[in-house]
Amino acid sequence: MKILTFGEILLRLKPPGLERFFQSPIMEASFGGGEANVAVSLANFGMDVQYCTVLPNNVIGDECIKELRQFGVDVSKVKRGEGRMGIYFLESGANQLPSKVTYDRSGSSIAIAQPELFNWNEIFDGIDWYHITGITPALSETAMELSLASVKAAKEKGITVSCDLNFRKNLWKYGKKASEVMRELASYVDIAIANEEDVQKSLEITVDIDVESGSLDRSKYKALGDKVLASYPNMKLIAITLRESKSADHNDWAACINNRAHFYESKKYHITDIVDRVGGGDSFAGGLIYGLNHYQELSAALEFAVAASCLKHSIIGDFNRVSVSDVEKLANGDGSGRVQR
Amino acid sequence: MKILTFGEILLRLKPPGLERFFQSPIMEASFGGGEANVAVSLANFGMDVQYCTVLPNNVIGDECIKELRQFGVDVSKVKRGEGRMGIYFLESGANQLPSKVTYDRSGSSIAIAQPELFNWNEIFDGIDWYHITGITPALSETAMELSLASVKAAKEKGITVSCDLNFRKNLWKYGKKASEVMRELASYVDIAIANEEDVQKSLEITVDIDVESGSLDRSKYKALGDKVLASYPNMKLIAITLRESKSADHNDWAACINNRAHFYESKKYHITDIVDRVGGGDSFAGGLIYGLNHYQELSAALEFAVAASCLKHSIIGDFNRVSVSDVEKLANGDGSGRVQR
Amino acid sequence: MKILTFGEILLRLKPPGLERFFQSPIMEASFGGGEANVAVSLANFGMDVQYCTVLPNNVIGDECIKELRQFGVDVSKVKRGEGRMGIYFLESGANQLPSKVTYDRSGSSIAIAQPELFNWNEIFDGIDWYHITGITPALSETAMELSLASVKAAKEKGITVSCDLNFRKNLWKYGKKASEVMRELASYVDIAIANEEDVQKSLEITVDIDVESGSLDRSKYKALGDKVLASYPNMKLIAITLRESKSADHNDWAACINNRAHFYESKKYHITDIVDRVGGGDSFAGGLIYGLNHYQELSAALEFAVAASCLKHSIIGDFNRVSVSDVEKLANGDGSGRVQR
Amino acid sequence: MKILTFGEILLRLKPPGLERFFQSPIMEASFGGGEANVAVSLANFGMDVQYCTVLPNNVIGDECIKELRQFGVDVSKVKRGEGRMGIYFLESGANQLPSKVTYDRSGSSIAIAQPELFNWNEIFDGIDWYHITGITPALSETAMELSLASVKAAKEKGITVSCDLNFRKNLWKYGKKASEVMRELASYVDIAIANEEDVQKSLEITVDIDVESGSLDRSKYKALGDKVLASYPNMKLIAITLRESKSADHNDWAACINNRAHFYESKKYHITDIVDRVGGGDSFAGGLIYGLNHYQELSAALEFAVAASCLKHSIIGDFNRVSVSDVEKLANGDGSGRVQR
Amino acid sequence: MKILTFGEILLRLKPPGLERFFQSPIMEASFGGGEANVAVSLANFGMDVQYCTVLPNNVIGDECIKELRQFGVDVSKVKRGEGRMGIYFLESGANQLPSKVTYDRSGSSIAIAQPELFNWNEIFDGIDWYHITGITPALSETAMELSLASVKAAKEKGITVSCDLNFRKNLWKYGKKASEVMRELASYVDIAIANEEDVQKSLEITVDIDVESGSLDRSKYKALGDKVLASYPNMKLIAITLRESKSADHNDWAACINNRAHFYESKKYHITDIVDRVGGGDSFAGGLIYGLNHYQELSAALEFAVAASCLKHSIIGDFNRVSVSDVEKLANGDGSGRVQR
Amino acid sequence: MKILTFGEILLRLKPPGLERFFQSPIMEASFGGGEANVAVSLANFGMDVQYCTVLPNNVIGDECIKELRQFGVDVSKVKRGEGRMGIYFLESGANQLPSKVTYDRSGSSIAIAQPELFNWNEIFDGIDWYHITGITPALSETAMELSLASVKAAKEKGITVSCDLNFRKNLWKYGKKASEVMRELASYVDIAIANEEDVQKSLEITVDIDVESGSLDRSKYKALGDKVLASYPNMKLIAITLRESKSADHNDWAACINNRAHFYESKKYHITDIVDRVGGGDSFAGGLIYGLNHYQELSAALEFAVAASCLKHSIIGDFNRVSVSDVEKLANGDGSGRVQR
Repeated sequence: MKILTFGEILLRLKPPGLERFFQSPIMEASFGGGEANVAVSLANFGMDVQYCTVLPNNVIGDECIKELRQFGVDVSKVKRGEGRMGIYFLESGANQLPSKVTYDRSGSSIAIAQPELFNWNEIFDGIDWYHITGITPALSETAMELSLASVKAAKEKGITVSCDLNFRKNLWKYGKKASEVMRELASYVDIAIANEEDVQKSLEITVDIDVESGSLDRSKYKALGDKVLASYPNMKLIAITLRESKSADHNDWAACINNRAHFYESKKYHITDIVDRVGGGDSFAGGLIYGLNHYQELSAALEFAVAASCLKHSIIGDFNRVSVSDVEKLANGDGSGRVQR
Repeated sequence: MKILTFGEILLRLKPPGLERFFQSPIMEASFGGGEANVAVSLANFGMDVQYCTVLPNNVIGDECIKELRQFGVDVSKVKRGEGRMGIYFLESGANQLPSKVTYDRSGSSIAIAQPELFNWNEIFDGIDWYHITGITPALSETAMELSLASVKAAKEKGITVSCDLNFRKNLWKYGKKASEVMRELASYVDIAIANEEDVQKSLEITVDIDVESGSLDRSKYKALGDKVLASYPNMKLIAITLRESKSADHNDWAACINNRAHFYESKKYHITDIVDRVGGGDSFAGGLIYGLNHYQELSAALEFAVAASCLKHSIIGDFNRVSVSDVEKLANGDGSGRVQR
Repeated sequence: MKILTFGEILLRLKPPGLERFFQSPIMEASFGGGEANVAVSLANFGMDVQYCTVLPNNVIGDECIKELRQFGVDVSKVKRGEGRMGIYFLESGANQLPSKVTYDRSGSSIAIAQPELFNWNEIFDGIDWYHITGITPALSETAMELSLASVKAAKEKGITVSCDLNFRKNLWKYGKKASEVMRELASYVDIAIANEEDVQKSLEITVDIDVESGSLDRSKYKALGDKVLASYPNMKLIAITLRESKSADHNDWAACINNRAHFYESKKYHITDIVDRVGGGDSFAGGLIYGLNHYQELSAALEFAVAASCLKHSIIGDFNRVSVSDVEKLANGDGSGRVQR
Repeated sequence: MKILTFGEILLRLKPPGLERFFQSPIMEASFGGGEANVAVSLANFGMDVQYCTVLPNNVIGDECIKELRQFGVDVSKVKRGEGRMGIYFLESGANQLPSKVTYDRSGSSIAIAQPELFNWNEIFDGIDWYHITGITPALSETAMELSLASVKAAKEKGITVSCDLNFRKNLWKYGKKASEVMRELASYVDIAIANEEDVQKSLEITVDIDVESGSLDRSKYKALGDKVLASYPNMKLIAITLRESKSADHNDWAACINNRAHFYESKKYHITDIVDRVGGGDSFAGGLIYGLNHYQELSAALEFAVAASCLKHSIIGDFNRVSVSDVEKLANGDGSGRVQR
Repeated sequence: MKILTFGEILLRLKPPGLERFFQSPIMEASFGGGEANVAVSLANFGMDVQYCTVLPNNVIGDECIKELRQFGVDVSKVKRGEGRMGIYFLESGANQLPSKVTYDRSGSSIAIAQPELFNWNEIFDGIDWYHITGITPALSETAMELSLASVKAAKEKGITVSCDLNFRKNLWKYGKKASEVMRELASYVDIAIANEEDVQKSLEITVDIDVESGSLDRSKYKALGDKVLASYPNMKLIAITLRESKSADHNDWAACINNRAHFYESKKYHITDIVDRVGGGDSFAGGLIYGLNHYQELSAALEFAVAASCLKHSIIGDFNRVSVSDVEKLANGDGSGRVQR
Repeated sequence: MKILTFGEILLRLKPPGLERFFQSPIMEASFGGGEANVAVSLANFGMDVQYCTVLPNNVIGDECIKELRQFGVDVSKVKRGEGRMGIYFLESGANQLPSKVTYDRSGSSIAIAQPELFNWNEIFDGIDWYHITGITPALSETAMELSLASVKAAKEKGITVSCDLNFRKNLWKYGKKASEVMRELASYVDIAIANEEDVQKSLEITVDIDVESGSLDRSKYKALGDKVLASYPNMKLIAITLRESKSADHNDWAACINNRAHFYESKKYHITDIVDRVGGGDSFAGGLIYGLNHYQELSAALEFAVAASCLKHSIIGDFNRVSVSDVEKLANGDGSGRVQR
């Protein structure tokens, strides 16, 4: 089983801890991005995973490749091109004060890449599973074309396609609405991952759930999944994450999965001292891809994914630096946090 | 509307994070002090605010001025004089372990300043609102004289006077009891801000509230405000803050306001992961001055002030580094802490 | 009253804050170990305490001695020998992710020390109280012999012996089961300190308590203590700690004490924002030794010990950097965490 | 005397000390840019200086303004617009290893600003001296037009124009050679500042000096200045800096000045332990503007400028954080570095 | 051309900058070791290089592998075994105060590895060049046997063997003198690398050079190389490094090479502001292997090696983080350290 | 041989590395002061040394005592009193930019201590050598009285008195000139330590030496010593340090000693990369006291003192963290800075 993920990886710049920007003249610098985060999760779980993107031909691009290679992600299909490294600035919140993301992605190498830079036939050689998100098609007209070309090529080669719908309202600035693009892209997807807002904004499918409320009515999530699967007959299953945001420090976290035949809801985790919530959804996607490939039971795959992403909330940075044994310990019920020695 | 605040600003020295002193050979160095904290809040809210104090003529004094100027506080009336920069050492607590403040303020420039250094007539030129606290008159005999002279001059010029009573039991060492001074000072005040202990110790007005208990009986706060307003007929309103200290990390926070005609209680915020509690009261004062000048409704002014000070508990340092939109978002009910991107 | 503690002190290496290893190229370096932690607690409480161990004759050993001396621990009986400084690597968890300890203790100076290096008769000169733990006899055959020789010598000289059973399943690798050794050692002990698992694994005495569950049935702890005291007629009392681990951040913490005549349970503390849990048990032992020597009432000694160890959870590092007045304030009921200024 | 400087200010990101990028996950973040650096120098020297630029309307732009305001630079003419904050990445060299700058400036707010955003008539109201550099016209076609428009407007209002030619070979990518633009711009300049390479690349005026050699033949610098002044009859004087780069740590630094009537060479400083060389030229320009406005003698102005920029090499960051008295002490001959206490 | 290096890699622990141990409670943690340092140099130069060792099966071993993989070193032949990670503690000197290394290597996985753990026939499959040092045979009897077995196996397969003699007087504790082992090992070596002391202590070949003096008589180095080559007829060439240590900050650095037919001396570099001298010799070995494989001229290979190792002195950590273009720029004569932008 | 030193110890606050104040919101915090620095030197050299002072009764005072105790300095005669901890702020220079000290010592515990706080008869019990400096009598009238009382008491008990004249022009503000006091104090001194300026300002004895020039004429130093010894017949010897300050990074350092019978000049050390120059003179005093007590030859004592203080320039902080073996290695001629491993 060889997996490929494709998308944009960004330089992430964040003041230390809970400081505001320039409260000290320091930024924590790391890398992250939805699809790269999934790749790192899978590499940490021991899977054979390749990441494809295009990076600028400078020292920051070089270091980004080194970072991914460290985790054992195969970077042999990373291209170098014109443009710049996309950046996001992050300020961490606490209590009632939210974390804030400021994007500086315009003109990034992937946003300006010409579709012909990527020979999908060659890229997909030997690949069994392809993961993409709704972020790439939001970047630019050409990135949208790239995204659609990739899923079409993947389907032609019989590769399983997973997609995290990942709606980002501050992207989608090149003239298309998310739903105009994502409804087409979704028709090539085998495994969909989303939260309720993603489904609504990307696919224009809704049930009456109040996403802004802290407390979510889970019972309606089966109906939502059913509606999506009804609209996309090629889709094999959809997993929907359920985040209840009590405060910047305290989220409750669960998910459900629906493959038409079965609907499962996971355990709900109370995460009361969030360390870093960014990349939480990506760690769910990574956990789900691992789970679907390693467990017989759909519910076991789901519980692995939810436990993996629960643990991500205790890890600094976009990447989920946990192992299969860490995740299985939690999925099997030990969330006591007792010191291991 | 031009506001002036006057008082002592201190160098704040604190070991990093939750370390004890000299657990590492590092101190986080910043500046803060009740009246300066109010000035910075107001500048961050876009108001025209001036800060007046006296600082020693050395490099630390220079840097203090630069820090205030950064926020857009008008420092043209800061004087330089004899004496030293006051210092406070802070050790942050957690759980059942309290934060601890050690003062090193003796001989500070403001404590030894001669009253004639300040020409209040000149200083108040163009000023509409004057804010002072109960800290300055606690520093020394001369500082007490300065404080009284300032409020008298302000009243003569028809300037609105706000005062945070701010009782500090480890100051008041020059031979007067707080109440001997503060009862006179309060007679010049239009807008009083206090907690229950401040009222009791500064004005010797009490109702039977157990301030040391974590849980406060709010109903008695109306009576307390009524008693103060009855004693000080010139006082237009009093706002009383209600802090319930569950632990060093978890406080509940609310306030009430009383202008004789109306009594309002604010929403109560559960702040379970306090980042820095110092300056919390000052951020309330800053929020209240902003609120009273920007909202028709007394209750809206109060809710702005409480939300502003709630957010302060998530900000490192004495200064409240939040914007009007941050505060209004919370005052309008969104305390979910969801990532903004 | 002069106390001696004896055991291994380790170099503790930990990535900053909640980082994973090598997330940055930095480790926080400090020293700690069960018996040294007790010595530092006692020194901080103003008691006359001596620490005995053997350290390698290099710069890291030198610095370890300086660290202990800083707190006022008498280091005149620390020996220098062959071998290396034991190390433990620590990664701090949060929420459902546990803290993890990786030992690097093999070949340490104390593990390879020959018993004749220590002349117990000389070492115990002037000593009134001797404290040891179940960690030292777990290190090696010779360390086990040393441990037994020490308690025998202490008893002969009429010195009070306290022992924290402290079972560590990843030590005990030299061919003996813990219980083979600890049952003999316990017969020389006056004051035993343990949690339920320690009793079971070290003494093979059980009552049916599920130690892995977060919530502990306290009522069975009297029975457990009774059983131990019945088996060890020389033992004067046993204190059992009760940790309920809700998550890596949130533990509830209490203890009980049993001297045959009396059984007391302490208050239970909710520690919801744990700063550093390592050394929590040692701080209980330190508090208990202080308490038994300073209070008439057994219950007062117990409450001091529990409050001391509760506060330790808010302190970074193995050592409990709190004073008698900090502990008494909490034991007397003030856990509000209000700023002291 | 009110001075205006205009140009691009960048976010500067640099690994700590002498680390390579991502050797630790930290970057030192500050701001800098040729014209802003001059403004900060002048503010530190107590002059009345205004900085004009256009910044993106986000939190990084906000913080940039705060940083400038801290020094007392008047930021009332800073505009906010489309585009992004330009960035430069810096890696510090040592010995034979050079420092390296990687630009990430494409799409910056000033590069894409439309000329009509700036009403020069309004901007120059009350201004006596205008400073610009050869960097702005290198950014884009529109930035070039802006630059030319600004100097023309300045000349029309009788404002003194100073310009640091500042040739940057990795800019100038929009289709014009530097000399095509700079030769026109120079015709509006009163005070030119340059090194030999700037003169050659920007004005295409040369004498045979080997700029890559460590050791410079100073005698030819008079001829070079004479040639420039002959070509630009409106130019009142030219100052040429002479850097001999022995290694990344050791530069010798001097300058000469030529106002047709007089030619002076400054003292030469041996700077053997360079702390931060970036901004060295800008600190010369700042020193020269101060000097020309405060000293009768041309040579005194030059010596002030050279001493100011010599000291800059001992200051971290782009900005020259020294005072007039620091500079005068050195210009007057005390470079002993003895502790002042 | 595929290269294999084999040896011990250590955890390197160093207080920040020029601090003494525990001056702050922080250690900079990285990895390094002679043969791994060579592997990283070669990977940075774009060569195909594999590193073989045995590491303990714990989180520190995992992170060591990640670190090497980051640079693109092939880690597929790294084994996991019993024992511990070797450590070295480093304190950086300055001026007359030397840097100091404290080893904590006893019981390391490679020191206790049984020779049969390594199947050299398999390991050398596809390998063209094998690099080893005199450090591994110094670790233990078994490590010595491993080392000899490896060079014999390499010679049998016709692989080029390079060896850095690297005498370490504080190792060699298992009962053999260095020369007893190294004289045998040297008989399998094609390319020897050494300084004068290494030759003397490892091969017992001397000419009268005073190694402790700062200033070295280079003329005698030809004679020394001739003597070695005469004693080892299979040896194809020997490179000898010449370090003149003026102070901890200032070394002069050069080398010579001798292949019987030719003798060359390199340029001498004055390195006056050393950043990190550890790994300097290894970076020479890495440069030489690269040079011998990429340049026709022996002198060009030597100049590349000396320039590479010169630059290493400006890089923090054991690894030489420079590129071929960095090295060639210096080897071609540009050591001016001018900012590249 | 038991030594006592007496004086003021200060909290030292310094921005990190070469940063200016508040360039980051961090200060490095340590302790230092002339006499305490001598005590720590002596403790590091293994001597039995006691430090006497008075400290405020707060947490900063507590930590100061812990710091001294760490080195093995006997702190049993440190008193706690009224007043505050003196502070000095330090900004490190480089190249032509000097380091700058800003004192914040007014109102310190020792400055306001009443002479009767110190019972010299008791304090000197068991003491053989007493060391004082010219700093304490400069602090205040009472501190001057204390100083004189102490030397008189010491002489009466036959204790050897050493004094570092240490003239500080920014102290001496209470109304006496230095020479009015120091000429009396010197009459009780056995061993005087000074530089040329100290002699001139404290004793008003001069020969024509230009102290501000970088290069010192050493030959005149014999004459200077002779003059002092002639004026103070009780004085047994005087040591004069010779600092030539080339820049903030580069000082040359030597000393001479004169006991009437003999005059010696030491070797001169070129210290080209100074790490921290503060405490350099104190480390000379510490080295001299050690040397005079351990070597037969006056010249050997002098060379030890000069080598000790040479090494101090490579150590961060006021304290000289070197050992006797470090110093003897240098005094014996090995200043090559070669790595020790």
